Amino acid sequence: MALIVQKYGGTSVGTIEKIKTVAQRVIKTYEQGNQMVVVLSAMAGQTDKLIELAHEICEQPDPRELDVLMATGEQVSVALFAMAVKSMGYDASSLLGFQVPIHTDALYGKARIHEVDTERIRAELEKGKIVTVAGFQGLDENGNITTLGRGGSDTTAVALAAALRADVCEIFTDVDGVYTTDPNICPKAKKLDTISYEEMLEMASLGAKVLEIRSVEFASKFQVPIHVRSTFSEEKGTMVMAETKDMEKVVVSGVTYSKNEARITMKRVPDKPGIASRIFKPVFEAGIVVDMIVQNTSEDGFTDLTFTVPKPDFHRALELLRDVAQDIGAERVMGDEDIAKVSIVGLGMRSHAGVAQKMFDALARENINIMMISTSEIKISCIIEEKYTELAVRTLHSAFGLDSDSQG
Amino acid sequence: MALIVQKYGGTSVGTIEKIKTVAQRVIKTYEQGNQMVVVLSAMAGQTDKLIELAHEICEQPDPRELDVLMATGEQVSVALFAMAVKSMGYDASSLLGFQVPIHTDALYGKARIHEVDTERIRAELEKGKIVTVAGFQGLDENGNITTLGRGGSDTTAVALAAALRADVCEIFTDVDGVYTTDPNICPKAKKLDTISYEEMLEMASLGAKVLEIRSVEFASKFQVPIHVRSTFSEEKGTMVMAETKDMEKVVVSGVTYSKNEARITMKRVPDKPGIASRIFKPVFEAGIVVDMIVQNTSEDGFTDLTFTVPKPDFHRALELLRDVAQDIGAERVMGDEDIAKVSIVGLGMRSHAGVAQKMFDALARENINIMMISTSEIKISCIIEEKYTELAVRTLHSAFGLDSDSQG
Repeated sequence: MALIVQKYGGTSVGTIEKIKTVAQRVIKTYEQGNQMVVVLSAMAGQTDKLIELAHEICEQPDPRELDVLMATGEQVSVALFAMAVKSMGYDASSLLGFQVPIHTDALYGKARIHEVDTERIRAELEKGKIVTVAGFQGLDENGNITTLGRGGSDTTAVALAAALRADVCEIFTDVDGVYTTDPNICPKAKKLDTISYEEMLEMASLGAKVLEIRSVEFASKFQVPIHVRSTFSEEKGTMVMAETKDMEKVVVSGVTYSKNEARITMKRVPDKPGIASRIFKPVFEAGIVVDMIVQNTSEDGFTDLTFTVPKPDFHRALELLRDVAQDIGAERVMGDEDIAKVSIVGLGMRSHAGVAQKMFDALARENINIMMISTSEIKISCIIEEKYTELAVRTLHSAFGLDSDSQG
Repeated sequence: MALIVQKYGGTSVGTIEKIKTVAQRVIKTYEQGNQMVVVLSAMAGQTDKLIELAHEICEQPDPRELDVLMATGEQVSVALFAMAVKSMGYDASSLLGFQVPIHTDALYGKARIHEVDTERIRAELEKGKIVTVAGFQGLDENGNITTLGRGGSDTTAVALAAALRADVCEIFTDVDGVYTTDPNICPKAKKLDTISYEEMLEMASLGAKVLEIRSVEFASKFQVPIHVRSTFSEEKGTMVMAETKDMEKVVVSGVTYSKNEARITMKRVPDKPGIASRIFKPVFEAGIVVDMIVQNTSEDGFTDLTFTVPKPDFHRALELLRDVAQDIGAERVMGDEDIAKVSIVGLGMRSHAGVAQKMFDALARENINIMMISTSEIKISCIIEEKYTELAVRTLHSAFGLDSDSQG
């Protein structure tokens, strides 16, 4: 008998019919002798509807009250799901964040889970119940409702799996696993059987949308195996798990891309200690996340500084930096929105030489100019012109032997 | 500085605009130096929508889960309301049933309040906050969400007012107070300035829909004055309060009617001890509420038994009683759905003679036949033909000096 935590996203429970289908699926696994904990998101569209309501009240709704409002979405899902299970002749119980409880800090809208009590869940499981837990929500130490932010239900599921020492955490989505790259732009993309936490983390932060980053961090920290699979098929999906020896044999596991970045360059910055700090301070203070930063070697006491910011923050960042440039005596600030980031990710990079060279060669063969480069232990990212994104992804996918008809 | 509990019903918070209007109204009273606790119902239509969703899952949704689902309605209202208040520059906090907490028994869908903790509310009030509490919901001793049943928000408000020893509990509705009778059928109906708990209870159980019966019982038990008034005007409404000396001077305070009853007669019942119990047992067991019961004096060891049941239960009751009639050797069972109950209510009846006579005379003058009579200390009800309902109400209203142009 295994203890299984399953998580179904908003599209999986988007209609009454789909909720019934999920109930049947859960019952099937329960009937095979497993204990079941089912985490649900709000029905698709519900979260947006609630946000809309809040914005009809005012532009900047109070964060505490917004969480009280948002939490109703998952509350509706779990109540309907438990009803469905019971109507099929099985015992079920819904638990909300405050009932588990899932203890979080008090950062409304993006709370972090501190601790998950397992007593109540275990008691319900021991009664033979199928337990369904509202995703995305928790309780701070003063008894206020908090939410974990978009995609937070993945984190809820992984946190429950960790606390309950579940055998596996199954994340059901509308894709059937983690792919070597986006199948929409590269038809030769391959489903991965396994992927390490580290690779999954890089891929998630570099644009792959299958799993929420925080849930992968959580899973990695507590060594919870995640099985990413499709709600609409019985096929096995992708296991996200601790590194195994076999994994390193594959140099590159995946190719990702992001069109959500813009590039800013500050020309002829006086190269003095503390200058970088002075430049970025107003940007950080505005809550803008700076991603890649490249500084050229100094010439005559001046240097060029280039970095990327999320596209929605581009214009604000540009404004802030033009003020800074004047203050510090830099020549000028330039910006460019028509860029994209393509990345390759793989544990094998740590032990294989020449991976970067191979990447640059492949892009060069297609006359794709590389504007910026950033590397980490297990990933290499290049900023290129946006119009080449799809071509670059397909080229790299093929160059690293990931195409589904080749043998890696 | 007074502590005021206000309750706004579903139509009062039915749209975003209305929620903002209520927020402004509450702030105005707060600005006059009062501490404010605001109880809200779900936005109009929301409760029905949720019930519909549940019934799409199955015909008989699990009661525990139905309460989890239903509780989201009030949760949405209080979150939006608190946002509105905060956006207007005042501090506010929403509290759900589990956060107050409002302790109830575990009778899902019709839970009764056992106790209301006031610590959290008092703490928020002392911070100068406008506190808004979700109506209709509570928490049982195992931490499960319960709901108080339709109209339960009135009870929440009164219970909070009692626990907090509030100066007044204001119930805002779409009418501007308690009337001597239904203004829709009697244009001369008059708004009452005051009414006693006992009279209000009788009027509520006899068909007046302004206040939920349980909230009046609660208010009476804890001597909480209720001010029933309109959301849409500043006018004073009706105070429901403990009896005062002045009240008894008025013989009749109100005339009510109900078309929701049906009459059943069992002819020639063998008049033996225990026979009534045998007749009603199956009816009670089927959960059918029997209202008026009249038994004629026995003749030759046989008697006739007549009583009323709610119209929706009429056919089932009839079926059950035909079986009983056969068992006990009664002659036959007859039924009649085209009846109505008209009642007069007034504390003064206790000390005034001839009230019943006056009622019968008034009806007789209009040739309205009385089929059944039932009296209590402060009310007299008559069953008449349904088609005479409106005429009877107007006649009694006038006969007891309640018409707005007369001087009672």
